Amino acid sequence: MSVLDGIRGPRDLDALSAAQLKELAAEIRGFLVDNVSRTGGHLGPNLGVVELTIALHRVFDSPNDPIIFDTGHQSYVHKLLTGRQDFSALRARGGLAGYPQRAESPHDVVESSHASSSLSWADGISRAFGRTGRSDRHVVAVVGDGALTGGMTWEALNNITDDNDRNLVIVVNDNGRSYAPTIGGMARHLNRVRMAEAYRDISQRSSRMAGRFGAVGRALYRGVRGGTHGFLSRFTNNSSLYSNLDIKYLGPVDGHDLPALIETLQLAKSYGAPVIVHAITEKGRGYQPALDDEADQFHAVGRIDPATGGSLGASAQGWTDVFADELVRIGERRPDVIAMTAAMLRPTGLAPFAERFPDRVYDVGIAEQHAVASAAGLAYGGLHPVVALYSTFMNRAFDQLLMDVALHRAGVTFVLDRAGVTGPDGPSHHGMWDLALLHIVPQVRIAAPRDAARLREELAEAVAVRDAPTVVRFPKGAVAEEIPAIERLQDGVDVLSRGDAEDVLIVGIGPFARLGLDVAERLRAQGIGATVVDPRWVVPIAGSIVELAARHRLVITLEDGIRVGGIGTRVRQVLREAGIDTAVDELGLPDRFLDHASREQILEDAGLTPAKIAQDVVSQVLGTRVPVARPEEGRGLPTVTGPIGRLRTPGR
Amino acid sequence: MSVLDGIRGPRDLDALSAAQLKELAAEIRGFLVDNVSRTGGHLGPNLGVVELTIALHRVFDSPNDPIIFDTGHQSYVHKLLTGRQDFSALRARGGLAGYPQRAESPHDVVESSHASSSLSWADGISRAFGRTGRSDRHVVAVVGDGALTGGMTWEALNNITDDNDRNLVIVVNDNGRSYAPTIGGMARHLNRVRMAEAYRDISQRSSRMAGRFGAVGRALYRGVRGGTHGFLSRFTNNSSLYSNLDIKYLGPVDGHDLPALIETLQLAKSYGAPVIVHAITEKGRGYQPALDDEADQFHAVGRIDPATGGSLGASAQGWTDVFADELVRIGERRPDVIAMTAAMLRPTGLAPFAERFPDRVYDVGIAEQHAVASAAGLAYGGLHPVVALYSTFMNRAFDQLLMDVALHRAGVTFVLDRAGVTGPDGPSHHGMWDLALLHIVPQVRIAAPRDAARLREELAEAVAVRDAPTVVRFPKGAVAEEIPAIERLQDGVDVLSRGDAEDVLIVGIGPFARLGLDVAERLRAQGIGATVVDPRWVVPIAGSIVELAARHRLVITLEDGIRVGGIGTRVRQVLREAGIDTAVDELGLPDRFLDHASREQILEDAGLTPAKIAQDVVSQVLGTRVPVARPEEGRGLPTVTGPIGRLRTPGR
Repeated sequence: MSVLDGIRGPRDLDALSAAQLKELAAEIRGFLVDNVSRTGGHLGPNLGVVELTIALHRVFDSPNDPIIFDTGHQSYVHKLLTGRQDFSALRARGGLAGYPQRAESPHDVVESSHASSSLSWADGISRAFGRTGRSDRHVVAVVGDGALTGGMTWEALNNITDDNDRNLVIVVNDNGRSYAPTIGGMARHLNRVRMAEAYRDISQRSSRMAGRFGAVGRALYRGVRGGTHGFLSRFTNNSSLYSNLDIKYLGPVDGHDLPALIETLQLAKSYGAPVIVHAITEKGRGYQPALDDEADQFHAVGRIDPATGGSLGASAQGWTDVFADELVRIGERRPDVIAMTAAMLRPTGLAPFAERFPDRVYDVGIAEQHAVASAAGLAYGGLHPVVALYSTFMNRAFDQLLMDVALHRAGVTFVLDRAGVTGPDGPSHHGMWDLALLHIVPQVRIAAPRDAARLREELAEAVAVRDAPTVVRFPKGAVAEEIPAIERLQDGVDVLSRGDAEDVLIVGIGPFARLGLDVAERLRAQGIGATVVDPRWVVPIAGSIVELAARHRLVITLEDGIRVGGIGTRVRQVLREAGIDTAVDELGLPDRFLDHASREQILEDAGLTPAKIAQDVVSQVLGTRVPVARPEEGRGLPTVTGPIGRLRTPGR
Repeated sequence: MSVLDGIRGPRDLDALSAAQLKELAAEIRGFLVDNVSRTGGHLGPNLGVVELTIALHRVFDSPNDPIIFDTGHQSYVHKLLTGRQDFSALRARGGLAGYPQRAESPHDVVESSHASSSLSWADGISRAFGRTGRSDRHVVAVVGDGALTGGMTWEALNNITDDNDRNLVIVVNDNGRSYAPTIGGMARHLNRVRMAEAYRDISQRSSRMAGRFGAVGRALYRGVRGGTHGFLSRFTNNSSLYSNLDIKYLGPVDGHDLPALIETLQLAKSYGAPVIVHAITEKGRGYQPALDDEADQFHAVGRIDPATGGSLGASAQGWTDVFADELVRIGERRPDVIAMTAAMLRPTGLAPFAERFPDRVYDVGIAEQHAVASAAGLAYGGLHPVVALYSTFMNRAFDQLLMDVALHRAGVTFVLDRAGVTGPDGPSHHGMWDLALLHIVPQVRIAAPRDAARLREELAEAVAVRDAPTVVRFPKGAVAEEIPAIERLQDGVDVLSRGDAEDVLIVGIGPFARLGLDVAERLRAQGIGATVVDPRWVVPIAGSIVELAARHRLVITLEDGIRVGGIGTRVRQVLREAGIDTAVDELGLPDRFLDHASREQILEDAGLTPAKIAQDVVSQVLGTRVPVARPEEGRGLPTVTGPIGRLRTPGR
């Protein structure tokens, strides 16, 4: 039996010897490579925190002492140590989540994958413990150096220092990277610390001490409070990250030296006030293919060959690749176009642009707020920024889009990758709010390409807008098959398909144009005529959508985003303003958080399949009287009295 | 003629002697007290930056060198020096805006009143200048110490330090306060600096030097580059705010000592790399009533007696007062309820709670993101936080509400003051996005009280919800007259008025319940029967709204927020799901930014008056066939076939 097999919960670590702990770390590394190479997942980050996580669970008593993982993708080791060792369906429906999840275990606290929030959580939880007589409980936040570039951490630290009488330990897991190397002055500071004498010193010293005294000696050492303070003060000088904030600082400590880590965390635990433990780790540790990957050290992988690290997945062209390629082309002819990313140069497809125009890319760190507001400044200075983010992270910068960009009529283009249902990463990675969120920003224009050709042309149209924010959003994964238009209407709307009669108008947004075509085909078989359009620019609502709606008896809008407050509601609102009361069915994602599963499974659950939608339409059209377009007076808008299509008997 | 009369633009400052500049400062203080006491406005902050603004315009060449005021309410002196001296209609329609506004002057750059964004703007603009061959231009950001508690500034500084070859000057206007004294470790650090020997030293030294050499001597001094560096290094040691970030630091300098300020800014200007100038100012400087006001030193005032500072406005009970009072009552019986504010204890009505329960209030600084995420942590620890914010600042924390609070089913109550149209503060202060923004968060429940009694009861209902975020939002100003319900329906919806027939259902949200009643009265005169309801909890949509809608021929929703994506769209969506196709008119604010004016003027422009709405309804009802409720099959929801009210001939 391996050591890992014997670990049912964190307290099983207590009886292990130093040698067994080391063996455990090796077994966990093997487990991670074996399992994640089969399922895909966040490999590099978890290989980097094996010893750190073991030490945390050895020193602290989770869940009595909550351990909060910032961003959460580095919680695999934590799962292994808290009774979750079946990784066979990692990130798949029914399997373990790729992030902490409260439903899985009481050891999991924060589920969200959005970075930089752990210190705020820790601040709140420790204040609550203090106020409710549970001051003995420790709260631990594990935060990467990348996440420290996010402003929330500054806000939290400024508060944490205000309330010194509590047990709060902040572990900075410093691997010098977020996805790519961490940027900015803070990162340079950490680099200097990493290189400094002090680090080499504590590293050797800890190893020596462990060798000399063993577990008993370390226990004795922990008992010497005076010694603790001496030890602390020794490493609380100029190397402090936030010296002005009066937060005590321990380290740096070698994040792969188990005895040193355990000793340092014990000191932190005994301190009785907020303390930062600075651990230096290596992303991808112990797995050569990850270490050799300079781009992101296997931050997140698909299925790979565990021996070589080579990808086993299909390598179809992705939406990201198309964007990456087109942006370079635009950059060639538009010297004013510059690219911005929030610590995700490669994942958002900016690498080719950065290679071609190295001085025209700004990586601002995990700092979406700053990315968006400084983009407004760049636009004021005459440039056209293209801000490339994952859709879900745009939620962080709504206010800056509204107040800094839109209010100031700045020409800034936002390219939102992984919009809509993403799948295995779970509720906080789905890009399902962007449409509902962004269309309420005055001036904004939003495009949702249905295929690669449209992504290219809509991106070009977006960067041509000089006085308003533009958004181009597309899903994760392989780019959709090309869908040619049978006609492009004067205002840019593409007609993709026409039926024999104008019964149902299907407005398919972005990749849901394909869904619309599939629905139309099923309706046709039932004798119902459908027109399928891709508005291309979904906001503002095109006039031709209004005209078409007036001629049809039912409108179906299909969006890969939440229904409530979505684009469908806006289509309906515009129709009403124009005096068109054709019934509108707004189809989209439900108003709830969606767990990890495949994109197909999630869409099926949401009823967003051709069969389900067609069935609903048929029952409506055949079972009831469909409201018809009617003239409406007194609203100051053109009156439309379109001809009404005749419903025929279904084919069967 | 006064010195001020002779200032048509900033370059008119160049010819003034030191004595004239001093006289100008005195004149400006008199001008501000005289004028702002008549119109109301931000008095304290502007009195604090008189010398600083004069010095900035003397040293830098706006608009060639853009000066960016963080938050912008301290831009009155800037307006006076850039050709805008008619303050008679300050913050009123047609008069000067209370914040910078590009339409007023090319000297204005950033219009938004949301704090902590200026460094991001400055970063963007200076990068753009560098990239487009205008590196000679300086960019100046003027940021308060309060705004530095916002995480955006950390994100920006981390970027500013990455690019050292540019002319970027950050002036920290340190008055130790935002509205109230600034909180946190950063503020303590600034306090120590303020008290330190170094500050007294530079202060005296500058005065001495100015006395000894005069303008010529200072010009010579400025020429000595070696001296400059010596001077810099002398004050770039342990007192540096962000020493780890490698940004050079000058100061602290007495923000009311004109020669010292001019000298220091000249040094900063000549530095050729990003530099922080730390100026110590006094809010309300030179005006005793402001200095005597410990609460907020006349941060923003209504009309006052300029001699005594006493308020001349009516002192009707405000919404804020009602909330303040009720929260104390709740606090008495609910020891788990704690209050949180983002640097606005008094403006949001938390002062009485803080007096009664001093250890149950957390002021987190201008840090909405942290407020919301740490509230989730407090809830995890068993407390029920009440987070009191202005509606417009909630925009900053959408992601935290979604990911940290809602996803984790945390019982946190958000109290949003100044929701809807606020009036004189202009586009970035209107709380017009909250409804459309927040209702797309799964789990959320939103209440909008119509009067004081409802605010009290809805707040109590909100804090009783333990597993989801709740929002209670109300407008600025005097609380609305009480509107008794004629019936409370089983699901909590209040029926406020019934007509003779069930023609039109009016759903009046919050204070728009009154608007609904006024519309109904006008409809009654036209022979049209209207039912007016206040849903009280506007999200989720109550079942009784659906039932009522089924019995009426037209539904009108009235919301003090933007129409697009608003609550009206959700009402309509829920009706459609239930198979009710009664036509719905969603009335609300237009999809554009609204300039400063009175609330009444803005609502009139938006067509949100009883006369205009009634006119529209009448023309619809009489001029057209109104669609009727109809059964609908195959949607898996109850079928409703309500009786249809008969339309009668209007009374005239």
